[in-house]
Amino acid sequence: MTASWDEFGMISRLFRPLSKREPGAFDLTDDAAVLPPSPGCEWVVTADALVAGVHFFPDDPPATIAKKALRVNLSDLAAMGARPRCVFMTCAFPEHFENQWIEEFSQSLGEDFDYYNITLCGGDVVATPGPLTLSITAMGEVPSHKVLRRNAAKPGDIIAVTGTLGDGALGLDLQNGKAPQCLKEEDRLYLTHRYRIPLPRVSAGQALNGIAHAGLDISDGLIADLRHMAIASGCNITIDPNRLPLSVAARSWLDARPEDIERILTGGDDYELAFSCAPEVFTELSERLDALNIITTAIGRAEVGDGKIFKINANGQRVLVEIAGGHRHG
Amino acid sequence: MTASWDEFGMISRLFRPLSKREPGAFDLTDDAAVLPPSPGCEWVVTADALVAGVHFFPDDPPATIAKKALRVNLSDLAAMGARPRCVFMTCAFPEHFENQWIEEFSQSLGEDFDYYNITLCGGDVVATPGPLTLSITAMGEVPSHKVLRRNAAKPGDIIAVTGTLGDGALGLDLQNGKAPQCLKEEDRLYLTHRYRIPLPRVSAGQALNGIAHAGLDISDGLIADLRHMAIASGCNITIDPNRLPLSVAARSWLDARPEDIERILTGGDDYELAFSCAPEVFTELSERLDALNIITTAIGRAEVGDGKIFKINANGQRVLVEIAGGHRHG
Repeated sequence: MTASWDEFGMISRLFRPLSKREPGAFDLTDDAAVLPPSPGCEWVVTADALVAGVHFFPDDPPATIAKKALRVNLSDLAAMGARPRCVFMTCAFPEHFENQWIEEFSQSLGEDFDYYNITLCGGDVVATPGPLTLSITAMGEVPSHKVLRRNAAKPGDIIAVTGTLGDGALGLDLQNGKAPQCLKEEDRLYLTHRYRIPLPRVSAGQALNGIAHAGLDISDGLIADLRHMAIASGCNITIDPNRLPLSVAARSWLDARPEDIERILTGGDDYELAFSCAPEVFTELSERLDALNIITTAIGRAEVGDGKIFKINANGQRVLVEIAGGHRHG
Repeated sequence: MTASWDEFGMISRLFRPLSKREPGAFDLTDDAAVLPPSPGCEWVVTADALVAGVHFFPDDPPATIAKKALRVNLSDLAAMGARPRCVFMTCAFPEHFENQWIEEFSQSLGEDFDYYNITLCGGDVVATPGPLTLSITAMGEVPSHKVLRRNAAKPGDIIAVTGTLGDGALGLDLQNGKAPQCLKEEDRLYLTHRYRIPLPRVSAGQALNGIAHAGLDISDGLIADLRHMAIASGCNITIDPNRLPLSVAARSWLDARPEDIERILTGGDDYELAFSCAPEVFTELSERLDALNIITTAIGRAEVGDGKIFKINANGQRVLVEIAGGHRHG
């Protein structure tokens, strides 16, 4: 414990301002927060942990670490169609951490709290002899009995995704020195940014809720998460890898190294949503998401089955995708 | 990542059974849990993190680590007068951890979940190159607009505590080799157990709620937490150290080394409740707590003031307790 380490002072100065939107957080001064849901709503709650050297690089800037830790949780709320409202955070800081680092961290969190209109409601700050470890529990709201689950895909549904796929996994590969030599500087910057600061599809999740049949985020990798959807829903899913939406940077990467399509299919760290919907509402959903500046791409179909994933191969044949396990840092 | 490390398998086999009481936990298979409060209730939420080597000894048995991690959070709910209902837990396990260890850990958690009638609703399991790090967010319920806060002590109130004080701090000192030589084996066992497995005053908190004026747990140390109450309530508090309830083990320790009364006053790791109440309801509250087999001891009074703590010294004089900061591991 260094002399500069003052838990109560740190909480009061750096973290209390982040709790301003919720009276029930009691300025972080009580043992717990009191959180009545809005009328007609119920809470949706999720928790994720991130460890330096496992989920992000220890020398990533504090701003990107703060935002990633928050946003991976918001992505889980988005996947349920929930509107984020509040956050509980425990931080285990290495003892050598400077106050300056922690100030930048809390300031960046505050920027995201403003952007997403959410608030800190509690948590804990402790010292650790190990790496920086962050755990966030995020709470959001859905109208009562209306939540976007992963278990409701129906045979005949279109399977679609938001945004572009694979940027997170390729951004990670790039930071690990595995990018093709020829990849341009602007593409490198783009992929690094996408890996470091995910963009959870919060507004998309709410727009899908009540219309789409099933939804989840694909942070474990597209194939692994579609398999989760297929198993939970009791159907098969067939996707066409030629239809995967790719960023310019990911397209350049694949032009140089086509075999990395496997990374796009199975790599994690994408925080897009995959969803299933009846074909007749797909256009309406696409327009809703267009209005939010989020592109939507149909990549496959749900079929009668028991949880298998198929893909269309280069010869146009439908082949079973074997289970290789979802990518997961932890 | 060792080959034996299978996050999804571990969650399914060891942690899913812990979620059985809450349909909205979806068997831990979805992105988040959906948690409507009981009719007429609102949620009380708290989060705490524990790090091996900081908050417990790395070679403590998995059972005591699991129970301590859970119970320090239940103590915060107890301090608000809430009934615990569900838990979100993120575990960062060192990669060398054996499945056997984690099985014992989850089994012990399950015992406590049964005992407290609570359920796991979500979380995360990750690997860490650092020490075992546990973060728990606990959710409980109180009837709407009825919660036990720390900011409502009134001049004239009796200040009282549950149970006995100092066992946690002395148990920690003992494990650090600082016990008096003459301390008996049974006293050593007792203090070690009290340090390792706190007994949160869950039923006491609910019994106090609505009758006591102010309440909190004293995990940061008696003086530090009474100061929190005094500052939040805008009063002073005077306590009489001769009235502190002590276990037989703590009494033996103090007989051998009287100066360690300071550890009883300022050491942390006690998870008793301190509360304030009008003198005319103290007997009723004591009887309520008696019925729960929890002893209650009046140790002082709240007075007009601005957040100061006084104690009665050996000469019967009332002296100001200087601010030395609350004990806090983290």
